[in-house]
Amino acid sequence: MKEFFNVADVSHVMEYANRFPPVATERVSLSESYGRILAETITADLDLPGFSRSIVDGYAVRAASTFGASESNPAFLNVTGDVAMGEIPGMTVHSGETVRIPTGAMLPEGADAVVMIEHTEALDTTTIEVYRSVAPGQYVIEKGEDFSFGETILEEGRPIRFQEAGLLAAFGRTDVRVFKKPIVGIISTGDEIVPVDHIPDTGQIRDINSTTLFGQVQTAGGIAEPYGIVEDTYEALFEVCRRATAASDMVLVSGGSSVGARDFTMEALGHLPDAEILVHGLSLRPGKPTILARVGNKIVWGLPGHVVSAMIVFMAVVEPFLKRIGGVRRWEEAGLRFTARISRNVASAQGRIDFVRVKLRHGDGVPWADPLLAKSGLIHTMIKADGLVAIGMNDEGLDEGDLVEVIPL
Amino acid sequence: MKEFFNVADVSHVMEYANRFPPVATERVSLSESYGRILAETITADLDLPGFSRSIVDGYAVRAASTFGASESNPAFLNVTGDVAMGEIPGMTVHSGETVRIPTGAMLPEGADAVVMIEHTEALDTTTIEVYRSVAPGQYVIEKGEDFSFGETILEEGRPIRFQEAGLLAAFGRTDVRVFKKPIVGIISTGDEIVPVDHIPDTGQIRDINSTTLFGQVQTAGGIAEPYGIVEDTYEALFEVCRRATAASDMVLVSGGSSVGARDFTMEALGHLPDAEILVHGLSLRPGKPTILARVGNKIVWGLPGHVVSAMIVFMAVVEPFLKRIGGVRRWEEAGLRFTARISRNVASAQGRIDFVRVKLRHGDGVPWADPLLAKSGLIHTMIKADGLVAIGMNDEGLDEGDLVEVIPL
Repeated sequence: MKEFFNVADVSHVMEYANRFPPVATERVSLSESYGRILAETITADLDLPGFSRSIVDGYAVRAASTFGASESNPAFLNVTGDVAMGEIPGMTVHSGETVRIPTGAMLPEGADAVVMIEHTEALDTTTIEVYRSVAPGQYVIEKGEDFSFGETILEEGRPIRFQEAGLLAAFGRTDVRVFKKPIVGIISTGDEIVPVDHIPDTGQIRDINSTTLFGQVQTAGGIAEPYGIVEDTYEALFEVCRRATAASDMVLVSGGSSVGARDFTMEALGHLPDAEILVHGLSLRPGKPTILARVGNKIVWGLPGHVVSAMIVFMAVVEPFLKRIGGVRRWEEAGLRFTARISRNVASAQGRIDFVRVKLRHGDGVPWADPLLAKSGLIHTMIKADGLVAIGMNDEGLDEGDLVEVIPL
Repeated sequence: MKEFFNVADVSHVMEYANRFPPVATERVSLSESYGRILAETITADLDLPGFSRSIVDGYAVRAASTFGASESNPAFLNVTGDVAMGEIPGMTVHSGETVRIPTGAMLPEGADAVVMIEHTEALDTTTIEVYRSVAPGQYVIEKGEDFSFGETILEEGRPIRFQEAGLLAAFGRTDVRVFKKPIVGIISTGDEIVPVDHIPDTGQIRDINSTTLFGQVQTAGGIAEPYGIVEDTYEALFEVCRRATAASDMVLVSGGSSVGARDFTMEALGHLPDAEILVHGLSLRPGKPTILARVGNKIVWGLPGHVVSAMIVFMAVVEPFLKRIGGVRRWEEAGLRFTARISRNVASAQGRIDFVRVKLRHGDGVPWADPLLAKSGLIHTMIKADGLVAIGMNDEGLDEGDLVEVIPL
């Protein structure tokens, strides 16, 4: 009988992430920046907006000229001109005066507020009635109100969503420095595994993990490099792991990592130059037979062969590592969590994290999470699932109605 | 004073989506299928798995041979051979016999369960002690247990995540029919708008909407085609809208859609061949000055010029339309929602949907959503925000502690 796993707990495994350097950086154009991780800290080199603007179509006024105005007691103002879009208004607005102003145009000298067109009536071409008073600053965005000169607007390590890209545009950034996408080699092993385009004989199955891991890597911001199916022998695994670690920032080997009669992944990884096995066995279910190794400054994961186990280990530990080396700063907090109520009791054992697949049922209030229980070699629960619920190391299970955090799928 | 908007409510607007045909379909390879929308319904052409498999490393047995086995009273079994990975086992397992079997290998004739290696001890090369009994089917995935022949595995209109791609791989699909990505033309208008690579004069601002809408379109599964900044004149808008509607499935025009002195978007759209203004004004805040038009069978949106308003109208109505023409079936339900508690009172008016930007604070139980209140011309709240909360048509506002659904950003 062979050695048992020396099972590591998940928080301990995550500490290893800091041992690996982030990937290099590169400059990309603004239109390629979506979803990338910012590799520079950006400071406002101007006030945004650069001038006080109207946010409605209406009349620029001194607010005091409207004080006390109402439907029954309108204020009368003299219209002395028009502000054109995109131009510096030449006039000054004095007390009792007003100028027509469109949305987005610059507030003229003297004006400190705008009356909406809907709250006025033109009596003739030079006089309006105003039916509501406005406060100073009302319907106006002040110069520098969004961001002011010298302020830090975006910090290194921040993911660029559409709104961050918009902010970069506002500051005239047509390109930006981002972290490169980490390159992740994907290897499948197992003598029962055949390529997707083969018809499996009895006893064989098609390679699912290469496809699911490819999608997970790309979605997590990496570049997936498939190495195909490798024969489950020491020589074959050693050779492909050597090539893959040389060409990638991270390597995933799925299958062949359990304590079985024919387990060569550990042996092959252990013999690569400057290699160190950091973890063999993880306190996760599914996902216990997981290996984490360092080969030079590259990360190598041995993932379980069971398709659902490989997906879940990816989400639980591989993806945070990938984001960390990809430049994301506060990766511990990264990722949104839904809140739901578990719809029935789920048993678990202390000393490990159990990942339960759930389907959400929306209604009023907090949604219900229905557990989808099945063996981790079956993919159908992951097809039906909306998310995963983690039952913590120190919990003996969940009771019906318990509030849980759901990791979206 | 010009006409007021004839404001349409949002649910009414969404009914128009069914008037537009979905885009055409195309075949893509499995590795290009992630995030695409399935345009065929897929049926299992084999059992998955195609044979009964062990899910652990251990010994294949007749379960009955282990009944009553325990640490103090082990069962003794004769080891009669080994099952090799990926091969059809030649032997039959009789009562009192067992064969070694690795994870994933095919169960031999006669065996109906597997004993984990950890629950056995080898006495010599042909005899083991078994310390736990197993039930029939234990540690085995049965033939067809994941999906059985003839079953519908994935339906048309379904988004392909990594797990759906994995399932396609399991069924040998190296390519798959998906809906084309809808092409979305993006036009910015406004005489105060200058390109991102220009230094704005006082009174001018850089074009933010082209960048944010580009990112939103790509993230929602479309192909963004920028048409740049168009002069705010009838002739210029007519000409670019004519070109854009001819080349796109949907066109977004931001700016120039309010009831102002210089509003030519409505006029230009109304004069395009076979054009119909469906909606002018939406019961949304921010986002009231929104136009929806049909030009032939193309969709045209006039979006507000304010950067946050344009983003929110995109999320609230444009994105569901885009998904609908992009082939998504149950688009009304699409999109996950977080549950949170609002951390302070927020006022709203009945008769419109108010979108409030929120930042989430996680803790035990349901997270708190902190409202970020600011003018819709300011981008900084969208930078800080984690999501949006919609206050419904019939609600007068939210009270501190109310449960709310959060649309993630």
